[in-house]
Amino acid sequence: MPDPEYFLVPEASHDSLVAAAYRRRGFHGDEIDAMVRLCREAARHGIRTHNAIKALHLDDLFGSPHGGCVPGAVIEKRPNRFSASETWVAHRKLGPAVAYQAMDVCIDLAGTYGVGMVSVDAAWHYLWGGAYVLEAARRGFIGYTNCTAMLAEVVPFGGRRPTLGTNPHSWAFPTVDTVGFPILVDFATSSVAMGRVQQYAREGRPLPPGTAVDRNGNETSDPAQAAALLPFGAHKGYGLGLIDELFAGMIGGFLPSLRGRFAEGGDVKRTTAFFFMAIHPEALSAGQHADGLGWSGNVKRILEDILSGNEGSILPGALEARMARRSADLGGLLFTAAELDAFDAVARAAGETPWDRTGFRRIQA
Amino acid sequence: MPDPEYFLVPEASHDSLVAAAYRRRGFHGDEIDAMVRLCREAARHGIRTHNAIKALHLDDLFGSPHGGCVPGAVIEKRPNRFSASETWVAHRKLGPAVAYQAMDVCIDLAGTYGVGMVSVDAAWHYLWGGAYVLEAARRGFIGYTNCTAMLAEVVPFGGRRPTLGTNPHSWAFPTVDTVGFPILVDFATSSVAMGRVQQYAREGRPLPPGTAVDRNGNETSDPAQAAALLPFGAHKGYGLGLIDELFAGMIGGFLPSLRGRFAEGGDVKRTTAFFFMAIHPEALSAGQHADGLGWSGNVKRILEDILSGNEGSILPGALEARMARRSADLGGLLFTAAELDAFDAVARAAGETPWDRTGFRRIQA
Repeated sequence: MPDPEYFLVPEASHDSLVAAAYRRRGFHGDEIDAMVRLCREAARHGIRTHNAIKALHLDDLFGSPHGGCVPGAVIEKRPNRFSASETWVAHRKLGPAVAYQAMDVCIDLAGTYGVGMVSVDAAWHYLWGGAYVLEAARRGFIGYTNCTAMLAEVVPFGGRRPTLGTNPHSWAFPTVDTVGFPILVDFATSSVAMGRVQQYAREGRPLPPGTAVDRNGNETSDPAQAAALLPFGAHKGYGLGLIDELFAGMIGGFLPSLRGRFAEGGDVKRTTAFFFMAIHPEALSAGQHADGLGWSGNVKRILEDILSGNEGSILPGALEARMARRSADLGGLLFTAAELDAFDAVARAAGETPWDRTGFRRIQA
Repeated sequence: MPDPEYFLVPEASHDSLVAAAYRRRGFHGDEIDAMVRLCREAARHGIRTHNAIKALHLDDLFGSPHGGCVPGAVIEKRPNRFSASETWVAHRKLGPAVAYQAMDVCIDLAGTYGVGMVSVDAAWHYLWGGAYVLEAARRGFIGYTNCTAMLAEVVPFGGRRPTLGTNPHSWAFPTVDTVGFPILVDFATSSVAMGRVQQYAREGRPLPPGTAVDRNGNETSDPAQAAALLPFGAHKGYGLGLIDELFAGMIGGFLPSLRGRFAEGGDVKRTTAFFFMAIHPEALSAGQHADGLGWSGNVKRILEDILSGNEGSILPGALEARMARRSADLGGLLFTAAELDAFDAVARAAGETPWDRTGFRRIQA
């Protein structure tokens, strides 16, 4: 249900308000820069679930007020005997400030080795994984990331109790020259986000099959009864969600059902973990592409073949790319009236003047 | 619907018949050894969809009689400037003979670099990707593979026409010391296999929602009308299937809707592509696991946490591991009467004496 109207917010207004909010919370320059960049990218691409409003909401719930996220934390690079891999301890540094750096290192490593990895322990929420893999793709690499989630909201396939996070996976491919934008495969391994269940409840609509369970672990179509989410795609989505936990367990993370509960105190490890990878496409190329087209031309023909006779299909990432182009053409970021209300609250909490929305252009959705 | 009874076939009987069948088709010693090994592993693990019967059926349909697979083909290792990556042209060599070697090289590379990749162009069906990643996991590494499929059987999300393969992904994790077996996440990106749709048809049962489309591209619950498969998990499974095509396109593969049609002649490229990766778990470890347990102890605690209160849940790979243990305990491979009929046909075609099944122990399923 798209909102009927957007307000066009200049990027400078957005950026200075987000920076002020994070400065007020004690974050340092590098952290503020990375968070502003992440929030701007999310808003440009229409990622309404992981914009500045969500970022600040997460900080309120689990972050700097609770010690879950530590302003000014310094990344510790741990010894690692493997040349294409780095392992970092983030000491709860603001997620985007860690994630952009980690992807930069992956890209450097992939330039030499064909593939590079950075694993991050003691991490704090990087918000939208798509932003980091898109950065890799724009620079000509395949980007991949997975991470564990702050809360255990997802029931293992066949089970009744939520003990898995929404554990996302994000891949992006260097297809700007091929199809005009980076292909982006980016999803949580839950059926939907919990926020989407709440939207069904507000709209009085039943949940689709396979979405959620009630407090007793029985599947329910009543959004008001939904207590936990099911994995998407039954055992397949469950397996994909488990992969994030296995990577995190090897990196150093701890129990999903304890994570994110910083407010409960105690010295048990409660942090999440990140995994990043970049691959150079020429490290995959055996150099014998059909018709001598090279990898990019070959990929273009393959994608045309896949979409041929399938006018209703789009490539993953096309919607995000379209939204980003629209934002660029309009020269600003598109937010709904409800989102502007939330930004007004952000401004007041940060001691800033709320935006004068009468000055913003109104744009039909 | 499990078969009520199995016959216990000695591995030596299985292995010598499979070897004879491939020898008869002109394959060389290294190819026969790899194929026997793959078929034995599939049968041990209860992978009824990708055992020797399927392997020979595929060879009949697309393989050595049609030039799709070339006995005695020699792998060409192409120059590659990236140290953690190799790129091979398989020249249609029998898939398992390429895949086991490729995973060996990935493991060697991962021992030095933390991660290793082998990409294979001009490949011919490796059957069960799980076998290769399980080998990596048994040797202490995370194994991953994806590949493109011989035929376009899957409709892109939102589309009507099958232009994607069943494009599988397989991951295995070195969790033998942790939970007693390697965790194996291994699936096709189609809703189900086409063979499963045919089984619904035989049993006169309707298809579950989201399984298949008819000739006009409309979703159908009638298995007799099913002309193509839908991706599992809607846009998410579609994205995962597309990833295999993107890797293949970069490696050198060609149009999904042309692949595997070797019998149609012409000099267009019609081969699939493989991608393999191994990761050393210590290349991920930041060395600060909770309670000083190290990565394996930490992963064990995480998995216990995930299954806690979820008695109906199992870890992916548990069923395959249980079947392999049962085969080992019984001292043979379990096949149904229908499968033994198929092996009799294999024996006759290879000029061998069919098995005397009265000599095989009967085992309740």
